[in-house]
Amino acid sequence: MSAFKYALLQQDTGSQARRGRITTSRGEIETPAFMPVGTSATVKGILPEALKEIGAQIVLANTYHLYLRPGHKLIQQLGGLHKFMHWDRPILTDSGGFQVFSLGDIRKITEEGAAFQSHVDGSKHMLTPELSIEIQLALGSDIVMVFDECIPHPAERSYISESTNRSARWAKRCREVLSPGSSSALFGIVQGGMELDLRKQSVEQLREIGFEGYALGGLSVGEETSLMYDMMEYSLPLLPIDHPRYVMGVGTPENLIEGVARGCDMFDCVMPTRNARNGLLFTTFGKVSIKQARYRDDERPLDPDCQCYVCQHFSRAYLRHLYVSKEVLASVLNTHHNLYYYQQLMAGIRQSLEDGTFSKFRKDFYHKREKHSLNLID
Amino acid sequence: MSAFKYALLQQDTGSQARRGRITTSRGEIETPAFMPVGTSATVKGILPEALKEIGAQIVLANTYHLYLRPGHKLIQQLGGLHKFMHWDRPILTDSGGFQVFSLGDIRKITEEGAAFQSHVDGSKHMLTPELSIEIQLALGSDIVMVFDECIPHPAERSYISESTNRSARWAKRCREVLSPGSSSALFGIVQGGMELDLRKQSVEQLREIGFEGYALGGLSVGEETSLMYDMMEYSLPLLPIDHPRYVMGVGTPENLIEGVARGCDMFDCVMPTRNARNGLLFTTFGKVSIKQARYRDDERPLDPDCQCYVCQHFSRAYLRHLYVSKEVLASVLNTHHNLYYYQQLMAGIRQSLEDGTFSKFRKDFYHKREKHSLNLID
Ligand SMILES: [Zn+2]
Ligand SMILES: [Zn+2]
Repeated sequence: MSAFKYALLQQDTGSQARRGRITTSRGEIETPAFMPVGTSATVKGILPEALKEIGAQIVLANTYHLYLRPGHKLIQQLGGLHKFMHWDRPILTDSGGFQVFSLGDIRKITEEGAAFQSHVDGSKHMLTPELSIEIQLALGSDIVMVFDECIPHPAERSYISESTNRSARWAKRCREVLSPGSSSALFGIVQGGMELDLRKQSVEQLREIGFEGYALGGLSVGEETSLMYDMMEYSLPLLPIDHPRYVMGVGTPENLIEGVARGCDMFDCVMPTRNARNGLLFTTFGKVSIKQARYRDDERPLDPDCQCYVCQHFSRAYLRHLYVSKEVLASVLNTHHNLYYYQQLMAGIRQSLEDGTFSKFRKDFYHKREKHSLNLID
Repeated sequence: MSAFKYALLQQDTGSQARRGRITTSRGEIETPAFMPVGTSATVKGILPEALKEIGAQIVLANTYHLYLRPGHKLIQQLGGLHKFMHWDRPILTDSGGFQVFSLGDIRKITEEGAAFQSHVDGSKHMLTPELSIEIQLALGSDIVMVFDECIPHPAERSYISESTNRSARWAKRCREVLSPGSSSALFGIVQGGMELDLRKQSVEQLREIGFEGYALGGLSVGEETSLMYDMMEYSLPLLPIDHPRYVMGVGTPENLIEGVARGCDMFDCVMPTRNARNGLLFTTFGKVSIKQARYRDDERPLDPDCQCYVCQHFSRAYLRHLYVSKEVLASVLNTHHNLYYYQQLMAGIRQSLEDGTFSKFRKDFYHKREKHSLNLID
């Protein structure tokens, strides 16, 4: 029996922002929430205990990667993904669709599903809505995503329409395999490209089927940020108020704030982890490229306002040294800080929603960055 | 004023093994002890807190690497190596000699010192006994090593003799810079290649100068293991009984046991950390190459007898998955286990010396590995 539910706790008066709580059989998720990405059964460079310590409530794992390596059946046989990666909090799995279309070498999309070749070993595979759900359930996912096509941008309107309708039919097939009330929740994904009427049509198709939560797909695919915000602003209010809303693959700290203001509850993005490994760090005063020579003898913590383990114990000079020396610890410390920053940002957003001060929080967020870009602080 | 002292607590009756305790101003080191190698101001892939948790009492840092990058003066300006790398227990620094001779692109050895080109950027440098000590003191080292030449093997007897005598003169110059009773201890390094009489002569030259501790250098340089053991067996008893004895760059778990049996108190080696990053793991039943297909679906912990974080929470299948997927966490988890294994081995040795059961411990150590190689256990 499903323990999944969403409670809308508070609504902001000055924006569409919502403070909520998702309950799953593996624990609660206070929303708005950011989900670190654990592609191959590990959030790259951080231990599960550290993830918990910094406040991660849920992680995302990639169906495509785990299907290819080490294989969902192996993970199932070993007791499921939670046990495999030593993570007992909720896991959301994507459907594999996005990676099939972006990483798979050859693709052929039919009504049945998507044929592709593995980026790992070139082997041939066919991913269907039914198989995607089967894989996600074998992994033991708490929140399963429907199998859909993430439409590239730009694309012809006729293709967007065709694809969106097919994704809706695929979504229905997913729902048929994974019924409401199952132990795993199923989220539908709104497509429709950048066409408002097709977005609306997609929402209606999904609401007709009925899901435990709703995601916006096909965003952050190269479009202008303002266009992405427009799509959120238009689409999110069309979704049922009593279900969680998730904008997939988004984004920067700014994107998170703006997504929340437009009514989004859940986010995921590789940015904090991938940027960390490339020495790009997020701080309250903006981005830092730690390899820069200016940090060579800088004894200050990366972000003096940050309470994370890294900022409490190490200097910018040390972080720069580790990065230019290509040390493993550079990835470990940078990842820790960046994920902490993201979790703190979300915690701050949630607190401000509880206090009714979200619009001030949003203003302060930008103000601090502006002061920095004017060189008033460093 | 120096807090450095060595207390010989117990001597084994069946071997030369010794249980002792080194005191430094940054804490005590129970011996025999293994020192993880933290080449560039980080023990690769492990956080300082984790190092402490697994029982590391002291780490070794490389003067050569830190001199070139980020520079000893920068580290001094930032408050010293302990603060820089967030490690408040003792640090031993090598003299840089070994790396100059093994990594430096061009070398010219004169009475003054060694001229070399940086392996990082090709820049030209001259390392002298005086500069080596200056660098080590700038880093804030607790145990400073004399600058010496690590003689390659094999080498002409005439060269070994010449080099050993020069190293003795260099050792004297080091002692002149770093007097007894300083806040950092200075260890002499016995050379002499594989020539017994030159080893003896080197010991006499060093004892004449007088150091807080004595090391055997020029071992583990490609010679047969039995020859290395012979050199230890011959040289270690020539050293003063009331000072710590350190065999540099050694070695495998077997080497540690045999080194202890021959009277050694301190060891260092990159093996546990470097092997970890290459997926080679140490266990009570021998070595494991975690990439092997046999571990693909192996749900057992790496070493069922190991109480480390990794063996308590992850399967061999997961460790294999991380390794073949080239995940950062593979290095982190493998390093953690290997260093834990080394620390546990030393703790077991120390306990057996206290209990007067070292010879049994030594026998059991080999017995367990033999059973495994006979496939009696896996
Ligand atoms: Zn921080
Ligand atoms: Zn272990």
